[in-house]
Amino acid sequence: MVNKMEALKKAYDETSYQLSGHAPRNVKVLKQAFQDIDEETQADIYGTGSAINDFEEKMAGFLGKEKAVFFPSGTMAQQIALRIWCDEKASAKVAYHPLSHLEIHEEDGLKKLHGIKTVLLTDKDSVIQLDDVKAMDPDVSCVLLELPQREIGGQLPDFETLQAISGYCRENDIRLHLDGARILEALPFYGKSIEEVCRLFDSVYLSMYKGIGGIAGAILAGDAGFIKSSKVWKKRHGGDLISLYPYIFSADYYFELRKDRMANYFESAKGLAAQYNSCKGITTLPAVPVSNMFHVHINKPKEETAEILAEVQQDSEVGLSGYVRAIDSANCYFEVSLGDAYPNVPQEKVDLAFRLLDEKMKA
Amino acid sequence: MVNKMEALKKAYDETSYQLSGHAPRNVKVLKQAFQDIDEETQADIYGTGSAINDFEEKMAGFLGKEKAVFFPSGTMAQQIALRIWCDEKASAKVAYHPLSHLEIHEEDGLKKLHGIKTVLLTDKDSVIQLDDVKAMDPDVSCVLLELPQREIGGQLPDFETLQAISGYCRENDIRLHLDGARILEALPFYGKSIEEVCRLFDSVYLSMYKGIGGIAGAILAGDAGFIKSSKVWKKRHGGDLISLYPYIFSADYYFELRKDRMANYFESAKGLAAQYNSCKGITTLPAVPVSNMFHVHINKPKEETAEILAEVQQDSEVGLSGYVRAIDSANCYFEVSLGDAYPNVPQEKVDLAFRLLDEKMKA
Repeated sequence: MVNKMEALKKAYDETSYQLSGHAPRNVKVLKQAFQDIDEETQADIYGTGSAINDFEEKMAGFLGKEKAVFFPSGTMAQQIALRIWCDEKASAKVAYHPLSHLEIHEEDGLKKLHGIKTVLLTDKDSVIQLDDVKAMDPDVSCVLLELPQREIGGQLPDFETLQAISGYCRENDIRLHLDGARILEALPFYGKSIEEVCRLFDSVYLSMYKGIGGIAGAILAGDAGFIKSSKVWKKRHGGDLISLYPYIFSADYYFELRKDRMANYFESAKGLAAQYNSCKGITTLPAVPVSNMFHVHINKPKEETAEILAEVQQDSEVGLSGYVRAIDSANCYFEVSLGDAYPNVPQEKVDLAFRLLDEKMKA
Repeated sequence: MVNKMEALKKAYDETSYQLSGHAPRNVKVLKQAFQDIDEETQADIYGTGSAINDFEEKMAGFLGKEKAVFFPSGTMAQQIALRIWCDEKASAKVAYHPLSHLEIHEEDGLKKLHGIKTVLLTDKDSVIQLDDVKAMDPDVSCVLLELPQREIGGQLPDFETLQAISGYCRENDIRLHLDGARILEALPFYGKSIEEVCRLFDSVYLSMYKGIGGIAGAILAGDAGFIKSSKVWKKRHGGDLISLYPYIFSADYYFELRKDRMANYFESAKGLAAQYNSCKGITTLPAVPVSNMFHVHINKPKEETAEILAEVQQDSEVGLSGYVRAIDSANCYFEVSLGDAYPNVPQEKVDLAFRLLDEKMKA
């Protein structure tokens, strides 16, 4: 079993073209971002200096919020946002999706470090609706909405639902936080500006290495009092590094490079999902993507799928995925996020890969 | 008042030579470290990959510990070390110096995030002795020793005292943690190897940007079980970044460049302290340095001292300090840490600076 998974990873790593992502995560990402930055440029020092403050100001303006702060990670930024809202209401309870990053990928930092209880809204396969929020414990200090909902293929509620949830929360003294790790990627579907989305939320987190494709780091934005508190908690978490500029300058570089490409990634995602859906035994979630991402569900066991994918990749030189995850003993899936890589793959190569995939799925 | 402090900062920033530190904290520090690193070098991914694991292994070996983990900050690494030892003994109480970094520079993260109570050993002006440890609450899970004790000029207990404290803690089921942010800088005074010092401790933290002069980051080392737990807490704190290589490769580069220069920095510190002590109204703490650092105490008020230092720096082109801190209304101090900068200052410039300083202090 391990060997089939390793063989899949190896086959993917050896492909000439990849459908997902921007480019390999290597040192070139850093060097390219720093190529035109003068050696004499001063480092940020413990959250001060133009190396950090200029970018924070720029991102606050971009998101339409009063202030912003650069964090080394979204994990840290979001726990802190929720802690501040819990302290404000003096109720250590927040609500989010059962597959929220905080619930499944952070070793329960929110609970273990902050003593915050979590209310899980809706079931794992759905996006949060107004009724879910209305039905929850009214003691909740903050609702976190992740847009798009990554673990279910990047699904999104309607924009009207967002407006309704926002209105309900404001009326009921509940703060609304945006897990916007991939929010830029969702804007083309909504047909809204980033400010129009962020206006519905009290606090907003944006990742610097998803669609933007920086090295690491996150922006947290909100009003001045919230951001002031977040800087105190950033120090408590050990996130107020003496210098964060390696992440900040690269975030800024790739933000400028890619912020206006999200509609292209969205169109690519819809086209690529259609190709997956044309293969026997394969469906995408969602059927038609609403952002740059989707999940590919295959109705074969994980090991058999790994073998098929490895062969397709070897024969076509096109990388579909370096892994598959089991859903149950008969089904598995992998994730696709479109970026700069896809347009560089020759169409005949893509077609070859999907012809081979369809053939092997039929066999 | 603000203006005198700003004028001092400006005068320092404009000097051609500086007595403290290695070099300006600018982007050159990053570019130099990455100059010979191949663009194709793969990034670390969430704590995995040779970009991080090779350096962790190397540092574990260097410190003589079973395992090591790279952290974005010492603040995070040390809170986590203390938390692990508190959980092990099921007693949320640690003991350290009243001027420990955790007590005065971390916004009480240890208390607010981990609910750990602190016992302050000895008075602010002393280093911790065996009797202080013997006299403390026996419920303490872990004693933290900071070597050298930065906030009192980098003072050190005798090596025999360290051995005695270590022996006492082992006999009494108390863990001993080394805040070794600057431990390499203290080795020449002890005349001991790093392993000989680390052997006395259950866990060790080493900063990557003090004497080593990297961009940021820290190493935490200990036995395999301890390090395994520390990785879980690293994720909880939001420190398990997708990629830490900008800090790791630069830490490795400057570690190799400077690890064997600590004796030079120590000698420079003794020579420079003697020059300060030859000036009227100025004494260093300690009188004779025991590492690469010391504090300069001036028996004049902060504002008057700022003016004197600004003038000396303008007239000599030699940077002594960019700030002064008040001790009381009649006395102030600043910190000096010797590094690569000092040997590059022409001796006649140094002599001129101290002649001017002495004259102005006498005036």
